[in-house]
Amino acid sequence: MAAKTFAGVPCLRFCPGDRRLSRSQIDGGWWNHRKNICPLISASSSSSEPSIRIAAEKFRSDSKVETLLDSVKWDDKGLAVAIAQNVDTGAILMQGFANREALATTISSQKATFYSRSRSSLWTKGETSMNFINVHDIFLDCDRDSIIYLGKPEGPTCHTGAETCYYSSVYDLLEGPKPNHDRLASTSLYSLEATISQRKDDIEAEQNGKPSWTKKLLLDKELLCSKIREEAGELIQTLLENEDSSRTASEMADLLYHAMVLLKLKDVKMEEVLGVLRKRFSESGIEEKNRRRRPDNRC
Amino acid sequence: MAAKTFAGVPCLRFCPGDRRLSRSQIDGGWWNHRKNICPLISASSSSSEPSIRIAAEKFRSDSKVETLLDSVKWDDKGLAVAIAQNVDTGAILMQGFANREALATTISSQKATFYSRSRSSLWTKGETSMNFINVHDIFLDCDRDSIIYLGKPEGPTCHTGAETCYYSSVYDLLEGPKPNHDRLASTSLYSLEATISQRKDDIEAEQNGKPSWTKKLLLDKELLCSKIREEAGELIQTLLENEDSSRTASEMADLLYHAMVLLKLKDVKMEEVLGVLRKRFSESGIEEKNRRRRPDNRC
Repeated sequence: MAAKTFAGVPCLRFCPGDRRLSRSQIDGGWWNHRKNICPLISASSSSSEPSIRIAAEKFRSDSKVETLLDSVKWDDKGLAVAIAQNVDTGAILMQGFANREALATTISSQKATFYSRSRSSLWTKGETSMNFINVHDIFLDCDRDSIIYLGKPEGPTCHTGAETCYYSSVYDLLEGPKPNHDRLASTSLYSLEATISQRKDDIEAEQNGKPSWTKKLLLDKELLCSKIREEAGELIQTLLENEDSSRTASEMADLLYHAMVLLKLKDVKMEEVLGVLRKRFSESGIEEKNRRRRPDNRC
Repeated sequence: MAAKTFAGVPCLRFCPGDRRLSRSQIDGGWWNHRKNICPLISASSSSSEPSIRIAAEKFRSDSKVETLLDSVKWDDKGLAVAIAQNVDTGAILMQGFANREALATTISSQKATFYSRSRSSLWTKGETSMNFINVHDIFLDCDRDSIIYLGKPEGPTCHTGAETCYYSSVYDLLEGPKPNHDRLASTSLYSLEATISQRKDDIEAEQNGKPSWTKKLLLDKELLCSKIREEAGELIQTLLENEDSSRTASEMADLLYHAMVLLKLKDVKMEEVLGVLRKRFSESGIEEKNRRRRPDNRC
């Protein structure tokens, strides 16, 4: 298969052959999803720095990319802030700087690439550790001097082995010289997931902790299942009986929480669930364009 | 009420009077949540720059804060990158720079505060627009040269009126000089939410678009409700019949998607749902400390 391009940029991840089939009621499923995998995907998974450089060189003649690179407000050192964010969880993975070549390389290779100020050289995250960040989309801010690499990390991002580089809470640090634990910067959904996980750990460690509704659910599958059914019913009721929308938000919160307790019992993370949804309803820059062009999109 | 402090820092947002009551089965609910609002919250909501400065001055004598500020690796201009992130959605709202005073002010006031390089002055986001970002926690990265302000925005963050400053997709820009639309940098959950919202808009605009499962659900409440019940049942089944965990992830994705279609019919955003969960299971730096100290925590 020949290398595909999008707006003059070699596409290493998504191929036009990838398409979503129409929904089939017959087999009881509600989505079918077939992927024709481009050979370049596996090649890109093991991209070494030289091959990325070659790819970057290829598209640098593309005038659209040149114009875009010209529009970025590089600082007096030729840099802009580049933030890598997990496309599924929203976690900020790391922050570095990009120069013109780093952004061009990321556009081309779809591997998050930075300019290392300490080494004065281009640096693709993962080129040594193999923990690449596969970039799905790239955003510039309103001032064109800040960049988001929205992507999916392969393995931990931080050199310490932590999932992200942000595990030091200022308020924990102010609490004392020996904080109880490192705590990743987490948004609400993942703070809740961590709390549920902690309750399960407490049970497994047979710690004689305080009474907890989460623990009770984790220990009683029948109770948990009846609660999920009940909360789904209450959510539905807010629609059918035209209850206040604040009630809907509250019932959805109830359902989500109880369902997340079930996920914990099955050792499934919300990140996996969101990955499933992303693959079904992908809206990445390249995918969206292909989706718009495809006549058989029925989602 | 006297100003409360946490680790020597005046607390403008969270008061020890705020506490979670034990779960009550009697009234059919499963959480009760009562808030005693501290007068300082409303005062802080309208914080003008001078009052924030005064607050910052108060805690600058605190040696713990000084030590923490000393530990940040400020660059040759005395700055570090500061990223403001929505605590509920994970959306990166904006990125600026903080100097020592800006970080100190943010710790104290819990309003995201930056150092404006163009104006060479301290700048609290919202001091003119009143669209403050109320900071719930602050994180430093492994190198101590990058900061996350994890907070809740009051209104749009961008000066253009956009929800965040990141609405220019590089791949959209490469598509041509006139992109079809601005598209916020969105993670999977919010891309799905935007897709569902677009389907509803298509129906309301009476556009004769392609067939769509989402549209069908939006137009048929009984079908939607039966699907939510069905998907909840299938999720439960993966636990009770010990099905493969990948099946659990898939069924949870199904349930979440269908429930989000219901949310759209009720004009409820996932951000509101996550806000409800955050208030129930808050894990912010200050709240966590208070929670650990409270004997009545039963979550």
